[in-house]
Amino acid sequence: MTDFAATKAMFELPEGVLYLDGNSLGPLPKAAGERVQNMLSAEWGQMLITGWNKAGWMGLPTGLGDRIGRLIGAEAGAVVVGDTLSIKVYQAVASALELNPQRKVVLSDNGNFPSDLYMVDGLLRSLGADYELRVVDPEQVAENITEDIAVLMLTEVDYRTGRMHDMKALTELAHANGVVTVWDLAHSAGAIPVDLSGCNADFAVGCTYKYLNGGPGAPAFIYVAPRLAQSVRPALSGWLGHEAPFAFDLDYRPGSGIERMRVGTPPVIQMTALAAAMDIWDMADMADVRAKSIELTELFIKRVEATCPELELASPRNPEQRGSQVSFKFTDGYAAMQALIARGVIGDFRAPDIMRFGFTPLYVDENDVEQAAEIVADIMRNRLWDVPEYKVRQRVT
Amino acid sequence: MTDFAATKAMFELPEGVLYLDGNSLGPLPKAAGERVQNMLSAEWGQMLITGWNKAGWMGLPTGLGDRIGRLIGAEAGAVVVGDTLSIKVYQAVASALELNPQRKVVLSDNGNFPSDLYMVDGLLRSLGADYELRVVDPEQVAENITEDIAVLMLTEVDYRTGRMHDMKALTELAHANGVVTVWDLAHSAGAIPVDLSGCNADFAVGCTYKYLNGGPGAPAFIYVAPRLAQSVRPALSGWLGHEAPFAFDLDYRPGSGIERMRVGTPPVIQMTALAAAMDIWDMADMADVRAKSIELTELFIKRVEATCPELELASPRNPEQRGSQVSFKFTDGYAAMQALIARGVIGDFRAPDIMRFGFTPLYVDENDVEQAAEIVADIMRNRLWDVPEYKVRQRVT
Repeated sequence: MTDFAATKAMFELPEGVLYLDGNSLGPLPKAAGERVQNMLSAEWGQMLITGWNKAGWMGLPTGLGDRIGRLIGAEAGAVVVGDTLSIKVYQAVASALELNPQRKVVLSDNGNFPSDLYMVDGLLRSLGADYELRVVDPEQVAENITEDIAVLMLTEVDYRTGRMHDMKALTELAHANGVVTVWDLAHSAGAIPVDLSGCNADFAVGCTYKYLNGGPGAPAFIYVAPRLAQSVRPALSGWLGHEAPFAFDLDYRPGSGIERMRVGTPPVIQMTALAAAMDIWDMADMADVRAKSIELTELFIKRVEATCPELELASPRNPEQRGSQVSFKFTDGYAAMQALIARGVIGDFRAPDIMRFGFTPLYVDENDVEQAAEIVADIMRNRLWDVPEYKVRQRVT
Repeated sequence: MTDFAATKAMFELPEGVLYLDGNSLGPLPKAAGERVQNMLSAEWGQMLITGWNKAGWMGLPTGLGDRIGRLIGAEAGAVVVGDTLSIKVYQAVASALELNPQRKVVLSDNGNFPSDLYMVDGLLRSLGADYELRVVDPEQVAENITEDIAVLMLTEVDYRTGRMHDMKALTELAHANGVVTVWDLAHSAGAIPVDLSGCNADFAVGCTYKYLNGGPGAPAFIYVAPRLAQSVRPALSGWLGHEAPFAFDLDYRPGSGIERMRVGTPPVIQMTALAAAMDIWDMADMADVRAKSIELTELFIKRVEATCPELELASPRNPEQRGSQVSFKFTDGYAAMQALIARGVIGDFRAPDIMRFGFTPLYVDENDVEQAAEIVADIMRNRLWDVPEYKVRQRVT
């Protein structure tokens, strides 16, 4: 059994804060400071250029990839860390399209994170006018998986509502129609159990600064099914994905398997912070995390619905169809979230009217949820959000 | 006048090391440790998600871009930091090609850094069989700038030899032939004065972990001439390049000017270390850096040539045509470099036979150069490189 009291003790959590925004940016692992300091002083400072070999910097992308892979049901050697999620979406879709050269349509849904749609739109504009990004409602994805679709690109868990797609069923349906799949696990990795191998997924991507707690701007990851990894062409063909990067050949030859999805020089400082976060994940079992997450979200919904009739549940009521977040619709949701933040309950707001709360068992417990629900009740009951300064929208991540 | 004793004092330089590899990875600024620690504890740890606004994380890419811009002759608001250099090469060339839609050839040279060629090769394969990457000898670039060329992509300073292209002349010739230019400043930024604005350059890219001392895997930068920035299409159209990232619109609308070249979430920890490095650069004038660099390279060449007849100068003899490095050819260069490293003189080796030494006035002085040259002389004179263990090649960055 995962010891959640022990994992909670490993995070820096500010006094007076109930942090329900780990689905946006996870908190600081206490060990990250010393770990990064050591990397700076003892590695960069003392080893200088030789740190790439001596300190193992060059192996971080695949080493961290394997540690993340355990949480998402990936085979060993099938995940590599690097770049940003937007770049990894581009990389995955570009490679996936070439597995289906006769088809020109990428299918996605309007619940996808906008950057995924932007990146693919940008890619398809480069590829030519005969390519199409087809965006349908989440509920209409299955019926739109037809034999003209080249690639199905979906985010498994909706960033606004937490609604989950059925990865296994949709992947099966896609394959039955000759469609290659790209799954974005931004709100899945570390949030819910994922079984990429068991679902027979083709490509997957995700970020590490949300549930995985890698820190602001932590690098992304990409998964390629081992049955494909040795044959896909890396459209972003950078030197560290080359078979022999330090031969400095003029011609590109892809590296073995997932190594070819590496691109440029990896961000070692960010990866060091991420490694500290993964040490905590090594203590956790995803089945335990999921069971606890469901307890926490059920408790929060029950308490809020009992006290706040103004708030309409925007997340699926069935926990089996919900990720590790709870969202409520409220017309003045932006102002209400500002009032909550002022009281130490950190969630976030997503336009047009979504108040979003993330539940992260590694460092959020029942007591936190009870307290947060009481503050929500107080703010709603007494209209504490109805203050002019809370209604001026600022740029919020 | 730049006070180089003062800048040198701001770097962590290990005892017994003469570091002539700042052209590969610059050393640790002493202030970086505390700066990063503060960012981790006081910002990420205490502000959590609100750090994006409160701590100014969201503004780091353009703020750092302007500080780098001063060193490379860029207009204010024309440079943004992010991603890796390989990604920025791809981004620049993809956007540049669309400015010349009737032409299908990218011209480069075989002195370019291989990853630049790999990335463009990968891009052109995606775009279709009618595109061509034409790679010529560095000396033949000018005569190959013809009216069928869409984009001229060159690294200004050759990573192996330090040979410099004439950016102003080649850009003029390119423009006279309707060719868009992409300059890679990997070995220029912080090494030599660059005048992007005065050269009328179109696009430029570079990295920050070499002469700029941003740390292992520090992010890259991209420059787009202000006359173009408002009209180029960002082929890598990520959410942080969107006009209104937090509106979460389904359709992409490019941000204003250089903002549109942002892609995903910026690596805040890496950028914090880079900010500490840029504080030192703020004390430096590039004309002083160049004058001192020429003194140091001239001194090193003179000493080595006087004592080591086996070493053949591979860099241009005329310092006006040479970047801030000196390279020598030697058949057993790999072994000789291992022997040097064992004696504390850190340079590096580039296949097939190049021993490369970088000179970085911010922290390398005449005394360092004299000492390094004496050790080179001792190793060559006494064949101290002729040891079996030094001849086994390992992966070296």
